[in-house]
Amino acid sequence: MELVRQNNPLIHCMTNDVVMNFTANGLLAIGASPVMAFSAAETEDMASVADALLLNIGTPSNEGVDSMVLAGKAANRAGKPIIFDPVGVGATPFRNEISKRILNEVDVAVVRGNAGEIAALLGQAGTVKGVDGKINADVKELCLQAAKALRTVVVVTGEVDAVSNGEQLVAVANGHEWLTKVVGTGCLLGGVIAAYAAVQPNSLVDAAVEALAFYGVCAEQAYEQTKKEGIGSFQQTFLNELGNMTDEKAAALKRVEQIC
Amino acid sequence: MELVRQNNPLIHCMTNDVVMNFTANGLLAIGASPVMAFSAAETEDMASVADALLLNIGTPSNEGVDSMVLAGKAANRAGKPIIFDPVGVGATPFRNEISKRILNEVDVAVVRGNAGEIAALLGQAGTVKGVDGKINADVKELCLQAAKALRTVVVVTGEVDAVSNGEQLVAVANGHEWLTKVVGTGCLLGGVIAAYAAVQPNSLVDAAVEALAFYGVCAEQAYEQTKKEGIGSFQQTFLNELGNMTDEKAAALKRVEQIC
Amino acid sequence: MELVRQNNPLIHCMTNDVVMNFTANGLLAIGASPVMAFSAAETEDMASVADALLLNIGTPSNEGVDSMVLAGKAANRAGKPIIFDPVGVGATPFRNEISKRILNEVDVAVVRGNAGEIAALLGQAGTVKGVDGKINADVKELCLQAAKALRTVVVVTGEVDAVSNGEQLVAVANGHEWLTKVVGTGCLLGGVIAAYAAVQPNSLVDAAVEALAFYGVCAEQAYEQTKKEGIGSFQQTFLNELGNMTDEKAAALKRVEQIC
Repeated sequence: MELVRQNNPLIHCMTNDVVMNFTANGLLAIGASPVMAFSAAETEDMASVADALLLNIGTPSNEGVDSMVLAGKAANRAGKPIIFDPVGVGATPFRNEISKRILNEVDVAVVRGNAGEIAALLGQAGTVKGVDGKINADVKELCLQAAKALRTVVVVTGEVDAVSNGEQLVAVANGHEWLTKVVGTGCLLGGVIAAYAAVQPNSLVDAAVEALAFYGVCAEQAYEQTKKEGIGSFQQTFLNELGNMTDEKAAALKRVEQIC
Repeated sequence: MELVRQNNPLIHCMTNDVVMNFTANGLLAIGASPVMAFSAAETEDMASVADALLLNIGTPSNEGVDSMVLAGKAANRAGKPIIFDPVGVGATPFRNEISKRILNEVDVAVVRGNAGEIAALLGQAGTVKGVDGKINADVKELCLQAAKALRTVVVVTGEVDAVSNGEQLVAVANGHEWLTKVVGTGCLLGGVIAAYAAVQPNSLVDAAVEALAFYGVCAEQAYEQTKKEGIGSFQQTFLNELGNMTDEKAAALKRVEQIC
Repeated sequence: MELVRQNNPLIHCMTNDVVMNFTANGLLAIGASPVMAFSAAETEDMASVADALLLNIGTPSNEGVDSMVLAGKAANRAGKPIIFDPVGVGATPFRNEISKRILNEVDVAVVRGNAGEIAALLGQAGTVKGVDGKINADVKELCLQAAKALRTVVVVTGEVDAVSNGEQLVAVANGHEWLTKVVGTGCLLGGVIAAYAAVQPNSLVDAAVEALAFYGVCAEQAYEQTKKEGIGSFQQTFLNELGNMTDEKAAALKRVEQIC
């Protein structure tokens, strides 16, 4: 976190229409600089100067994906980490196709999704409902398997989050259920992982684990302050926490388990 | 409300760019699952699996309307209710054309608008200013007449809301003026009506009336808590109320009058 | 401010995808009526009936700029003031091109940007990072020079804001650093200047100075109330202040210096 605040990384967010504002405010809160650019006329230029690229297909279109692939290739050429968030993959054939296309044409550093989405990326059947789907799956096994198959770091978020690069496997138990009651908290998490990856590009598992623990602790603290009020207050207080949380406090409250 | 929270209906929102985030957060607050999908490459698939479809033309485009018509026809085939919110119709010829097109090509279950918008749908002249326009009109008569002409349930919102299916006419007096000071409260109301319609598809007048009363009571409660602070606080507290309100409390505070 | 609240000007916002909601809520808070319309099928009609037009290129596309030019020409024909916010110009060649195009084809009344953006409009090299870039520049000199070169009123925002029409030069010292921690505060400021310009079209320097002082005082007041909580609370309280601030209070707290 201190590294993010000191280095103020520029995160090029190609994210969905619903969560842009919340993502930008969350990234500003943690000390990163968000920039949004979507047109094929400039995404390569923007991806080249940014410190990391976030690709999120929450409201996908054909032109949007063309632009994402251009940006992704530019980020690859510039050696900048790419975080891919396959929102709602499994819900429609279109999202399956474009997810495959992005994974084929772009060298992704970290993939983040819920269990249903990660299973869908592997072609496994599951019941995905909208973008907050849950499937019955052994999340840890799924994470390890996906990381091997996709050859990236994989983050499976859920009640307990799992992170793997195909060899290591780490579980993060922080977080709160109310995160699922605010739209874009998963999408912003992708941005926060991008910010951590931008300042620690050579240890992506650590970057993802620290981002998850930090994020989860902020949610827990925000819930404690707003549980009597409701999720409108939670959303605002969560942004306060993202801005105020220190590495020391996050380290003291984190619940991280190295599994292998 | 309890039905919504138990059934957690999936609402496919094809709404405008300004209010997507607020709409999604409001639907999550009441216990529904929002999903946004706009591309013609997937709107039919999404509309088929969702429990209701919201069409809102607040920031219209030709491609967007093509997509809406595809989604609407798919929802019709699947027997899912469609709520149409003709935002700003009357303000430009383009909005008049696309509103006609949607009403001609799609079988809409509920139309929601302010008096100016509903009058414009009927081809009646009025002074519509932006998207919060008001015209002089006998709202109840307008509502009944529009429901007959459009052969749908019509909701005319204003100081007192009116709901009609062309035979019944119900007035709902709940609500607060500060709702007009937060962008997207009308649009979110369309989403809330969609959620109620999804769980009560065979009694759409009741669904709309209950949604209006619930929504209005939440606004009244939020105003009481924030009137000394201002509309920024009102917006947040309104989301708290949407999440916390019970059927019992809403029933005790509702001001509903069956007119015919 | 009282003029805005009395006249309730309709502001046609062609702004970026990230800040639409915040811009609309901020304009509602000050008593203006925002309307968003982007499609070439209706932007001319909307610009003709609105009282001012805001052009903001924060998330630009080729079609979007075509639409902006159409709207701009229609606003020019109707004699309505246009506020241009060249977000991120200097960051990519595309933003440089479209900024030139808008300034060439449309008669802009006020240009608002940070020092890096205004310098980029003049073709001066600078280090622009994302959309919150800072460059070393004598801001007042830059403002005067830009106003002469562009033949518009120019607003350069920063720690101290500068306003010039090429002859007069005014500095406004109000504001707070936390404004840079909430996305869209610069963009909303463009909308607020548009609202002031709509009700004072013949004294645009005064309109811009009053808008800046008002806006800055609201930020200072919001910071005082939320500095112990954080920037999530600041964002909400800033909206409260925009709604509650009076001309008298703003006049008492403004820090405005007429330089020439």
